[in-house]
Amino acid sequence: MLLDDLRARIGADCLVTDRDVLASYAQDEAEWAPFGQPAVVVRPRTAEDVRATVQACIAHGTPVVTRGAGTGLSGGANATDGCVILSTERMAQILEINPLERLAVVQPGVVNDDLRAACAEQGLWYPPDPASSPWSTIGGNVATNAGGLCCVKYGVTRDYVLGLQAVTGTGELVRVGRRTAKGVAGYDLTGLLVGSEGTLGIVTEVTVRLRPLREPEHTIAGHFDSIVDAGRAVEAVAAAGLTPSALELVDRHCLKAVDDWKNMGLSVDANVVLLGRTDTPGAAGIAEAEAMVTCFASAGATFAVRSEDPDEAEALFAARRLAYPALERLGPVLTEDVCVPKAAVPEMLARIEAIGTRHGVHIANIAHAGDGNLHPLLITPPDDADQRRRAQAAFEEIIADAIALGGTVTGEHGVGLLKRHGLALEQAPAVLAMQRAVKSALDPHGILNPGKVLPDEVS
Amino acid sequence: MLLDDLRARIGADCLVTDRDVLASYAQDEAEWAPFGQPAVVVRPRTAEDVRATVQACIAHGTPVVTRGAGTGLSGGANATDGCVILSTERMAQILEINPLERLAVVQPGVVNDDLRAACAEQGLWYPPDPASSPWSTIGGNVATNAGGLCCVKYGVTRDYVLGLQAVTGTGELVRVGRRTAKGVAGYDLTGLLVGSEGTLGIVTEVTVRLRPLREPEHTIAGHFDSIVDAGRAVEAVAAAGLTPSALELVDRHCLKAVDDWKNMGLSVDANVVLLGRTDTPGAAGIAEAEAMVTCFASAGATFAVRSEDPDEAEALFAARRLAYPALERLGPVLTEDVCVPKAAVPEMLARIEAIGTRHGVHIANIAHAGDGNLHPLLITPPDDADQRRRAQAAFEEIIADAIALGGTVTGEHGVGLLKRHGLALEQAPAVLAMQRAVKSALDPHGILNPGKVLPDEVS
Repeated sequence: MLLDDLRARIGADCLVTDRDVLASYAQDEAEWAPFGQPAVVVRPRTAEDVRATVQACIAHGTPVVTRGAGTGLSGGANATDGCVILSTERMAQILEINPLERLAVVQPGVVNDDLRAACAEQGLWYPPDPASSPWSTIGGNVATNAGGLCCVKYGVTRDYVLGLQAVTGTGELVRVGRRTAKGVAGYDLTGLLVGSEGTLGIVTEVTVRLRPLREPEHTIAGHFDSIVDAGRAVEAVAAAGLTPSALELVDRHCLKAVDDWKNMGLSVDANVVLLGRTDTPGAAGIAEAEAMVTCFASAGATFAVRSEDPDEAEALFAARRLAYPALERLGPVLTEDVCVPKAAVPEMLARIEAIGTRHGVHIANIAHAGDGNLHPLLITPPDDADQRRRAQAAFEEIIADAIALGGTVTGEHGVGLLKRHGLALEQAPAVLAMQRAVKSALDPHGILNPGKVLPDEVS
Repeated sequence: MLLDDLRARIGADCLVTDRDVLASYAQDEAEWAPFGQPAVVVRPRTAEDVRATVQACIAHGTPVVTRGAGTGLSGGANATDGCVILSTERMAQILEINPLERLAVVQPGVVNDDLRAACAEQGLWYPPDPASSPWSTIGGNVATNAGGLCCVKYGVTRDYVLGLQAVTGTGELVRVGRRTAKGVAGYDLTGLLVGSEGTLGIVTEVTVRLRPLREPEHTIAGHFDSIVDAGRAVEAVAAAGLTPSALELVDRHCLKAVDDWKNMGLSVDANVVLLGRTDTPGAAGIAEAEAMVTCFASAGATFAVRSEDPDEAEALFAARRLAYPALERLGPVLTEDVCVPKAAVPEMLARIEAIGTRHGVHIANIAHAGDGNLHPLLITPPDDADQRRRAQAAFEEIIADAIALGGTVTGEHGVGLLKRHGLALEQAPAVLAMQRAVKSALDPHGILNPGKVLPDEVS
């Protein structure tokens, strides 16, 4: 049987079968997504262990669901009944940080902030910074092509992955990509694996590109009476040709939830806070910060200032990062992740507000606003079936409106389970057919995280 | 018959069958790569024409080879006997330049420099700048994932492609990717098509990301007695944590060829010239330029200076761009395109020199040195079979050495025909199997530029 086979291949100490422990590995943070009961959790120590696990899964026809820290927000790491959960938690070494080549080589279980701290010691910077960075792993970030706050200027995880070691759907351990600055040898299998949510391969090592540490940022804070005014400020910043290093929106619901939890006193002054940053060095940076203040004011900010106090600035961004866990304390959160063109940000925010009102659903908003990447958070009281139905209806309308405005159903969280239906709305049947063809080509046995990402085929 | 069918589907005015004209479409600029005789050149006006052409090719089992300006250097656009050459020359409109979203939408036949000029008029910048930019098309740049001079700081074509419209191997017209800043809806089909050299789809429209126009650059020029010293300067720049916006190497052979052609008087002072640039604004930029001068000097430069004369600086970079056509005047050029880690640049340059001496082959060198992307140019007298054999042997040794030093066989020119063997040396059989699986998945009829990129299967 599968368990005996796994024991023989990689040893009993890599396996967990205790039912309570299994349950703790059965889902990620997408509270609304369904999940099943895994047969076993495998905790490999080496890439060879991963290969042996996949080979066993092929032999037994058992699905394998790979999991980093479980901080995903779309159900991509959720268990299916009888699956193997492969947790990368014991593969957490930073293998190399190379200042001359400006790259790092890490195992998938390395926590994002740990890599960033280790790089900083050598004057280097790994930019991708999802709000989950204190917990989420590089492997998970690669699997979801994670974004974050700095993306508005510095791009997403895929932009920093040079090469991967991975176990394929046929159970082979391969290296794709490179260590060189450039390379066009064959198809971009590295970029294809990034963001594939464990459905095309299991990443066992990641080579990432680094940047030099940058100058301290200037922070700009703006208060707005309405979320649509804040959206107009975002549009004004883009129209002025500015390139902020962050441009984040936090609404009163989020500020209040953070205050209730951490007592930070943030929610008294504003309905909506917009937080901008610039890391342009020297006088040009100050000028860019002041230009952002002007954009905020022109869009109707009730208060807009370039912060001179680094502690205050850091507290504002800390509140932004705490918003999600703070809201989770209020009840199950259904997290949206639409991304729209910058010009459509005010309209999309207005539509979200109207949708919340129309369905009687409590929607809080955080947003990587400078990217047009909005995270309306639909909060429902626990065990309220009617509220849940209404939230689901609101969620579907937000997706439809984002597509109608030229946007996408997922900016950075991935498709997982929650956006499979949205993907089918966003992409034409011929494109979905291409995606299925790629999946079949690289996972011919259908054992790599089946049922995720791709929508069911309509026959 | 194919021709009748094409005439019926897209009209006789899109077809060229004159044998002399056909011959002019039969190969790109890879003078050593074999090519056949096409059956017809199709010059579509619209994406619908492209779709109809591919559908005809599927019906008749005829290969279709897509071609932009034909400036490729690996034979990727070379005809096979009886193929359809699909030339994008009549699809050359810039459809949109959008300052707020910082993107442009163009047809594939738009010339790179034309897009750059149109963007500049609106204060925007399309960074990818292959040396062929006055002639090469965005469609061709996408097909090869073209690099250029600015890559060392700003990345390659793939980093700027947000979305594509393309005709698939099953004859469907699809859109992949997005117009938004971020998006993770399904697999990265856009990135997969970029660099696929017409073997996975035919690009009919490209949406590219833009940047704001940047400050004027500072130019740093260094003269070196030996190419290895210049390589050491490249390593020193990387080790100092500097980020040049260009770092180009040109050797005496290239300077002399340019002088002989354009009479620029460049080759009297140096055996090797290293050209650096920085676009960091303000005082920080001057400091970075001076730091680069120090790096050059520490590596043994006989002369190193920050140029104060923009015309002189521009002339130096013009010479760099002219090096390739200047050398082509001397005889057929076999162009290398290896890319090695930055620390390996001096060693690789030394090995190239030794290989040239050992085989008695005239090797000139230009290099995107800051990327480790070296272009040794093997020049043979016309119709000298012995020289040709020796050049081929040198070419193979350069490839083997690049791989041995942790590099790749192609940094930016693509695999085409010339690097198929090199690809098989660089990548493991299991990786080549993944590439073949992707090709079969997206081109099930095997009609999209067959025989390119993927090496023959060894049974």
